[in-house]
Amino acid sequence: MSKYSSKWLKVSEPSPYVLHVELARAPVNAFSTEFWTAYGKLFDSLVEDGVDCRALVVSSAFPKIFTAGLDLNDANSLGGNGVDTSRDSARASFATRNEMIRFQRAVGAPERAPFPVIVAVHGHVIGLGVDMISVCDIRYAASNSSFAIKEVDIGLAPDIGSLAFLPKITGNHSLIRELTYTARTFSAAEAEKIGLLSKVVEGGRDEVVKAALELAKFIATKSPVAVSGSKHLITHSRDHSVPENLAYTGAWNAAALMTKDISENLRATKKRDAARFAALKIPSKL
Amino acid sequence: MSKYSSKWLKVSEPSPYVLHVELARAPVNAFSTEFWTAYGKLFDSLVEDGVDCRALVVSSAFPKIFTAGLDLNDANSLGGNGVDTSRDSARASFATRNEMIRFQRAVGAPERAPFPVIVAVHGHVIGLGVDMISVCDIRYAASNSSFAIKEVDIGLAPDIGSLAFLPKITGNHSLIRELTYTARTFSAAEAEKIGLLSKVVEGGRDEVVKAALELAKFIATKSPVAVSGSKHLITHSRDHSVPENLAYTGAWNAAALMTKDISENLRATKKRDAARFAALKIPSKL
Amino acid sequence: MSKYSSKWLKVSEPSPYVLHVELARAPVNAFSTEFWTAYGKLFDSLVEDGVDCRALVVSSAFPKIFTAGLDLNDANSLGGNGVDTSRDSARASFATRNEMIRFQRAVGAPERAPFPVIVAVHGHVIGLGVDMISVCDIRYAASNSSFAIKEVDIGLAPDIGSLAFLPKITGNHSLIRELTYTARTFSAAEAEKIGLLSKVVEGGRDEVVKAALELAKFIATKSPVAVSGSKHLITHSRDHSVPENLAYTGAWNAAALMTKDISENLRATKKRDAARFAALKIPSKL
Amino acid sequence: MSKYSSKWLKVSEPSPYVLHVELARAPVNAFSTEFWTAYGKLFDSLVEDGVDCRALVVSSAFPKIFTAGLDLNDANSLGGNGVDTSRDSARASFATRNEMIRFQRAVGAPERAPFPVIVAVHGHVIGLGVDMISVCDIRYAASNSSFAIKEVDIGLAPDIGSLAFLPKITGNHSLIRELTYTARTFSAAEAEKIGLLSKVVEGGRDEVVKAALELAKFIATKSPVAVSGSKHLITHSRDHSVPENLAYTGAWNAAALMTKDISENLRATKKRDAARFAALKIPSKL
Amino acid sequence: MSKYSSKWLKVSEPSPYVLHVELARAPVNAFSTEFWTAYGKLFDSLVEDGVDCRALVVSSAFPKIFTAGLDLNDANSLGGNGVDTSRDSARASFATRNEMIRFQRAVGAPERAPFPVIVAVHGHVIGLGVDMISVCDIRYAASNSSFAIKEVDIGLAPDIGSLAFLPKITGNHSLIRELTYTARTFSAAEAEKIGLLSKVVEGGRDEVVKAALELAKFIATKSPVAVSGSKHLITHSRDHSVPENLAYTGAWNAAALMTKDISENLRATKKRDAARFAALKIPSKL
Amino acid sequence: MSKYSSKWLKVSEPSPYVLHVELARAPVNAFSTEFWTAYGKLFDSLVEDGVDCRALVVSSAFPKIFTAGLDLNDANSLGGNGVDTSRDSARASFATRNEMIRFQRAVGAPERAPFPVIVAVHGHVIGLGVDMISVCDIRYAASNSSFAIKEVDIGLAPDIGSLAFLPKITGNHSLIRELTYTARTFSAAEAEKIGLLSKVVEGGRDEVVKAALELAKFIATKSPVAVSGSKHLITHSRDHSVPENLAYTGAWNAAALMTKDISENLRATKKRDAARFAALKIPSKL
Repeated sequence: MSKYSSKWLKVSEPSPYVLHVELARAPVNAFSTEFWTAYGKLFDSLVEDGVDCRALVVSSAFPKIFTAGLDLNDANSLGGNGVDTSRDSARASFATRNEMIRFQRAVGAPERAPFPVIVAVHGHVIGLGVDMISVCDIRYAASNSSFAIKEVDIGLAPDIGSLAFLPKITGNHSLIRELTYTARTFSAAEAEKIGLLSKVVEGGRDEVVKAALELAKFIATKSPVAVSGSKHLITHSRDHSVPENLAYTGAWNAAALMTKDISENLRATKKRDAARFAALKIPSKL
Repeated sequence: MSKYSSKWLKVSEPSPYVLHVELARAPVNAFSTEFWTAYGKLFDSLVEDGVDCRALVVSSAFPKIFTAGLDLNDANSLGGNGVDTSRDSARASFATRNEMIRFQRAVGAPERAPFPVIVAVHGHVIGLGVDMISVCDIRYAASNSSFAIKEVDIGLAPDIGSLAFLPKITGNHSLIRELTYTARTFSAAEAEKIGLLSKVVEGGRDEVVKAALELAKFIATKSPVAVSGSKHLITHSRDHSVPENLAYTGAWNAAALMTKDISENLRATKKRDAARFAALKIPSKL
Repeated sequence: MSKYSSKWLKVSEPSPYVLHVELARAPVNAFSTEFWTAYGKLFDSLVEDGVDCRALVVSSAFPKIFTAGLDLNDANSLGGNGVDTSRDSARASFATRNEMIRFQRAVGAPERAPFPVIVAVHGHVIGLGVDMISVCDIRYAASNSSFAIKEVDIGLAPDIGSLAFLPKITGNHSLIRELTYTARTFSAAEAEKIGLLSKVVEGGRDEVVKAALELAKFIATKSPVAVSGSKHLITHSRDHSVPENLAYTGAWNAAALMTKDISENLRATKKRDAARFAALKIPSKL
Repeated sequence: MSKYSSKWLKVSEPSPYVLHVELARAPVNAFSTEFWTAYGKLFDSLVEDGVDCRALVVSSAFPKIFTAGLDLNDANSLGGNGVDTSRDSARASFATRNEMIRFQRAVGAPERAPFPVIVAVHGHVIGLGVDMISVCDIRYAASNSSFAIKEVDIGLAPDIGSLAFLPKITGNHSLIRELTYTARTFSAAEAEKIGLLSKVVEGGRDEVVKAALELAKFIATKSPVAVSGSKHLITHSRDHSVPENLAYTGAWNAAALMTKDISENLRATKKRDAARFAALKIPSKL
Repeated sequence: MSKYSSKWLKVSEPSPYVLHVELARAPVNAFSTEFWTAYGKLFDSLVEDGVDCRALVVSSAFPKIFTAGLDLNDANSLGGNGVDTSRDSARASFATRNEMIRFQRAVGAPERAPFPVIVAVHGHVIGLGVDMISVCDIRYAASNSSFAIKEVDIGLAPDIGSLAFLPKITGNHSLIRELTYTARTFSAAEAEKIGLLSKVVEGGRDEVVKAALELAKFIATKSPVAVSGSKHLITHSRDHSVPENLAYTGAWNAAALMTKDISENLRATKKRDAARFAALKIPSKL
Repeated sequence: MSKYSSKWLKVSEPSPYVLHVELARAPVNAFSTEFWTAYGKLFDSLVEDGVDCRALVVSSAFPKIFTAGLDLNDANSLGGNGVDTSRDSARASFATRNEMIRFQRAVGAPERAPFPVIVAVHGHVIGLGVDMISVCDIRYAASNSSFAIKEVDIGLAPDIGSLAFLPKITGNHSLIRELTYTARTFSAAEAEKIGLLSKVVEGGRDEVVKAALELAKFIATKSPVAVSGSKHLITHSRDHSVPENLAYTGAWNAAALMTKDISENLRATKKRDAARFAALKIPSKL
């Protein structure tokens, strides 16, 4: 999998069907346009190439921090991207909006992947870091983690995902609004209280990455048709009413239930054997 | 109420206006097509017959388990239902989808009832069991309960309700996804943590059923117009935006506020008397 | 700010850009039509006049109670409002519905304000009190608070906001339904458990108001463009799917990112100075 | 097919896979509760029994009229259905609403059928008649037809389908509103102008029924998987946005494209032969 | 009704329950902020005062033109409204947006009225004129009318209603887009072709106003409960799916069907008498 | 612009800011996977490269036909795309679905372009041809055109756009359903009757292309900020309710109204000069 590694992204395969993506832009994983573009492309490439990944873990490569968020030294990072804004405010706004949508699509890439993405954080998780983890399927945090929805302190409303996701994926709007308006730091315990995390792992980077990789390894033993379909349907459920989701699920599973993974599971159970599933290979690369 | 009892469903009326439905298919309440069809019909019959039920408790009749989920020995249970699938994959898919929708409608019957349905679980609550409780209004669990969203272990995405309901009725998407992808067992404590339960009752079947019946008895003293309307409007709220729900509520209460239950409540309060409400009898049986 | 004070509403400005609105209708802040009309008008006036408010705290002026809810002695309070209902049930219903919508709009005024509204409650928070706090951005409660969604005990389904908001802003539908159907009293601890509160403050009125005012003061140091936009976008997110919210956010921030508050924040950070922001003055009064 | 005929509904099979349903309640096809209940049941029975119908034509059996609409002599026809409304206005309203939903479901049965329903009208098409034809897939009218959305003349807003369907299935809201508010009669030419009809057939009952049966016969030569799927997806499209419909279509056709009807069409084309398709038999009757 | 007349708006009551509103700002009914504010207030006042209006006609008071659209000489007309935009682009944008929403609400007032609003146009209907007529219930045009969606020629996308309404209330998106992108003039015949008009009346102002007033007079003989409900439900239908509209209609008519207008219609029919209905008086003015 | 031409797509710039894309795969513009992939990429490249295109015309390069639709000789054209379907039906379905989504995105590319796309058709417009034109902004047809929604004759429901678009962009569901279920050929006159076309141009390819290019040239003289915004907002309007579109438009125009195109229009009008607008250059290529 090292062929997917790039300047600031280390990709390894610690166990079969499990990928580990490490953010590695020293010193604090600050995200420049180039960095988040590469981040989004990595996920889209894995999907387009039909890599047989069944669970993926995202973490930082550094011992002290997950990410400091946006790289404010990147000239392009606040939407300009080289547009000469002196000419016309409306044209500048259109360009900014376009850039924002590209940014949202890059950071949102984990949602488009057919496999679960588990994010394992420790240390500081600032600004863009909260957008990034909100998009992932499952969030594990080391007990030494601290979070901040930092955008208000720059002078803008978070626009890459936090506000779109948090009110739906957690269970306390009062606290979400407080954390957003104040941009204050909050602990792993408080993150757990609002329902942002599956688990707080005692310790730091090593402990939380270990726990996440074990979870990924376990998920990778399951039917990819079942796991991938579940991911897709939970995302659909989040964005639609109960009757709409039930109807969509009916159309979806009409196809999915023809999988041989069901008989393979029955066979494995009967033989007390490990089930072996074919890849969910979707060759969309031309 | 015993006339509503059937082969695997025991129906009793432990207190006025309160029904108790017990699942009783030995040994583990495995759900065959016949069983879930009967389950859905029971609720629809109570509604069609205009039975004056004001709260209903669902529990298992057995001391050790709520349900093991789908009966995998039932030839029809995985969508086939006698269709000759050798002929045409699309026709088989259409038939599967049709069956799924019937299945969803049967398990979803408690939502269509005009009275609250409280489910009291203990022991194992596996697979379909989670779909079943997700659809109910209120969930009480004995401290000895254990749960599993088991479908992934069969090779399919849950399609009868869990994925449609859980992301909306609880408050931690990370943990919901983890539990769905892993199909692992989780405790009543963890279920409470994600917001799935109103209450964990110390003990087993007897304790949790007792607590649920007391709750039902208390709800049954309230105005059926008010309780039934509240149920209807919370369900609507779950599936619509705030402005849409406020508008719908306006249309709904325009009729409901003409009830004599309001004056009866005022009278009872003044006289320090118990309020007595007429049935919310909706004779829809022809 | 005292010019905004009225018969039952005390308005003060305890710190720059922070308003404090105290409910002061002795003895129990019972809401007559006149009272809730004034409450809604206060917020709408602050907005129309372009008052430079950056955070607002709502509390009771009385030491023992937040509000007992609707004033049942007010002839108009249950929808009649002087309509001669003897003539025609449909016309009466239309009038009731119209009144309900006016009531919803008045109580919902805090959501339309461009600044965050923090509600600080203590003692009894009954019936309409729950609708009122549900609409606010952030909820702080004294540990001596007790709550009741009391409408069912009058004979009606809550129609001014609780049922529209609670299923979306908290994380436990089972408990919300239980509390609604039973109309029973619940503690601050239980309110916190369902995710209704940011914080339970040990003590009573003084302690919780102090905490809320400190929070308001802190928020008032932030960029109004960022805070106001965040409020608007979280509300949009609650009512739309993730893709719809991301698209809307793109259009919104295309304009908002042109604010000078961003450069002011950079300047202040560099100079280790307090940032000073212009008012978000939106003169909509004609 | 005569076994599906009943007191007021004549069912025949004029050509293979084509059913003809004739409304035959002398003298003017006035709809009592019993009549519309039977009408809805007929469609639901055909579906449940898995009858191999590939197109169905609805018409009147009488030479002068399609339907006069609701039978105002039927004590139950305006929602009462035996409820003692003297007791409580809210309970009466709830019962009325329940009855309306049953009525909507019965008249809406053609939409739930997996085959296209073509309605061929002539003479008067009054009140409920417009609701009935709005729900059907395809509308043919004799040139002697006249229509009226008559409900306003009774004193109520149409509630069985006209207002839900017409604004979506036609192309002139101004005229739809005019016709609804005035309840005036309009001609086949005017109906065609708003986009309500596929075709105006010169003549009366005989001519329009002949044209509709020919259309049905032609549709019945097509792949049932393709026709049924198209019906389902157009209905979905009407009720959802373009992106939502494209996503749903993706899930739907993922299963449907596995049909052998595609290869059968290729074979028939190559051999200049008539294609022969298996029934879309969906045995949902228990 | 003359008390509702104001500087540029003439209000008369040409027949019982029918109001006629004439736009009368010489020479070309150009809309300044003051004019559209007054226009919106007129409708809202009629509603708040519970005026027993059952149909209203809007026309121009001048023989040659309906309206030239926005008054470009009004300093405030393009969103500025006195805001010092030099200070901060984001603040200026927020103020512009706020002003646009006020503008939309004013022009959209006819939709909020409980009675039908018929607009009768002749001569030029330019820019804002198209927004204005799109919001009305029914559109009649003299054969000498000409229309232009003129905003693109100013340099902006129409934002007061045309683009929100036209794609839903007419039946040809290709032509709507062509007319919007080109801002070209189109005739009454072309307007009729896309489904924008109920009727083209041969002649000019006098003929079209006469036809509209006759229509209004006829509608005013109908049950206000039925007409008002129909208006409300068609608007709801336009904005919701078929199943959602049917459900909402059920809740709405549950109350509306209790009207005495139904028995009054039956009585009048039996006695061959004119039906007499009580006002739909909804006193919402405090 | 010839650098954008490719094997089967000829790109020219017949007048300033106007592009002409001609489909040129002899003999009948049959669409293989390679062809529709190139078609989608062309549009996306124009956008990514920020080409200053202000209106684009799509037509066939051949005198007799627009397109025969899908290339059935292309092994991949029916969803297979090289997947070994023998292994597992569910995996094959997932791959098919993925390919369909890629196909939808390619054919849907004109909607994502910031400039209007006018399609000018003549001769046969079969199957995929109808999907393609449905996605475009404006449709012109030569009087010799004939159309067929041909998919049912292959054995599948149209899934690339026709069913998603036609029920929304035209005004006669009855005829749309008839044409879909029968797959029969229909004339330009019938297409105009359902509201599919802006205009039927007497003649064949030359006449319709000339008319379309003139329209494009005229649109290209308009403000790109206004035209592009209008396109975006009409598309949004099609997919959202009136209140949602008005709100979105408010956020959109808050930025767009700052354009200098407005003052340029005022200047040009005053000077009787042609307005000159800057490009809407959105450099999103990295």
